[in-house]
Amino acid sequence: MKILLIGHSGTIGKAVHTALAERGHQLVTAARKSGDYTVDITDHASIAALYEQVGTVDAVVVTSGSVPFAPLEQLDSEQFTLGWQGKALSQIDIVLSGIKHVTPGGVFVLTSGILSEVPVAEGAAATTVNGALEAFVRAAAAELPNGLRIAAVSPTILDESLDSAGAYFPGFDSIPAARAAKSYVRAIEGIGTGAVLKVWQ
Amino acid sequence: MKILLIGHSGTIGKAVHTALAERGHQLVTAARKSGDYTVDITDHASIAALYEQVGTVDAVVVTSGSVPFAPLEQLDSEQFTLGWQGKALSQIDIVLSGIKHVTPGGVFVLTSGILSEVPVAEGAAATTVNGALEAFVRAAAAELPNGLRIAAVSPTILDESLDSAGAYFPGFDSIPAARAAKSYVRAIEGIGTGAVLKVWQ
Repeated sequence: MKILLIGHSGTIGKAVHTALAERGHQLVTAARKSGDYTVDITDHASIAALYEQVGTVDAVVVTSGSVPFAPLEQLDSEQFTLGWQGKALSQIDIVLSGIKHVTPGGVFVLTSGILSEVPVAEGAAATTVNGALEAFVRAAAAELPNGLRIAAVSPTILDESLDSAGAYFPGFDSIPAARAAKSYVRAIEGIGTGAVLKVWQ
Repeated sequence: MKILLIGHSGTIGKAVHTALAERGHQLVTAARKSGDYTVDITDHASIAALYEQVGTVDAVVVTSGSVPFAPLEQLDSEQFTLGWQGKALSQIDIVLSGIKHVTPGGVFVLTSGILSEVPVAEGAAATTVNGALEAFVRAAAAELPNGLRIAAVSPTILDESLDSAGAYFPGFDSIPAARAAKSYVRAIEGIGTGAVLKVWQ
């Protein structure tokens, strides 16, 4: 399959790239500052331009997204909106804009995270936008045309991210990014739609 | 208890007003165009001004919110953002801005809806923003200071809304708004926090 991977340069993205290449897929990469193409996923015009450049693909994988962390009392509506734009709307827009650029029967695989269900200190915005994203996947699965499928992968904290973000996840089992990457393979090569693949159960 | 009810003039709001008044609570009402105070819940400054005018309350109830309905392929990122602002961020901001205006041990009660879990045709934006709101409630419950509690009420389609919106809910059991109103009473006078009270199970 020809697969557009948005966010190939991140910790999960690298592992997903490796896993999909090993499965024999043809990868087209995009990120803010590197890849076959560059894209700002918070900018609708940039997403539209990416699809025009890439043409038709069989699958789109997003492993990119950002959301502010802070104690609830220090978060304000602007920071929640940054999270909405950085991790929920961006991925939603990649789906909406991509419908006409993915071959019938193709698939979108988005990235959520354990915080959608398991709140942690300073993670209220992350929980909120991951919850939005997972709800979108449920809804979109029922309305996507042309047999298109959709899934979200929800990783827990990664081994590779313990140094930078481990303090937010006290007592959580971490996993290698390579294990999370398997769920992207499963979403792409499987037959399900509308599911959140939890890499922590 | 002194309770700020935002959205008293809507179908649910009227029933909640009746139910809370019958329980002996003192109600302060606010809506876009009527009530003791007026407020635009999509405008942070308007929410902040409302709290300054109202002063301290023991509970805040929101029964107001709007989100666009359209087939998935006709929804774009702007419409998802309208939904985010109209039903998720608005209620989140009412909580964030209200923390210092609610007495210790007080409670916020927000309004979600069955679409967070049960998608319907043309409802993808509603599912998404209701999912965001319910996730926020889970996260905020764990971080609110001063013993403040929070809950969301999730009604199904109301008897009173069948004429205007019934076509979106084929085969759904509708309920009277007065039944949904009971869950607001339960959220306010109970002891739970972080829950979504589903008025359809």
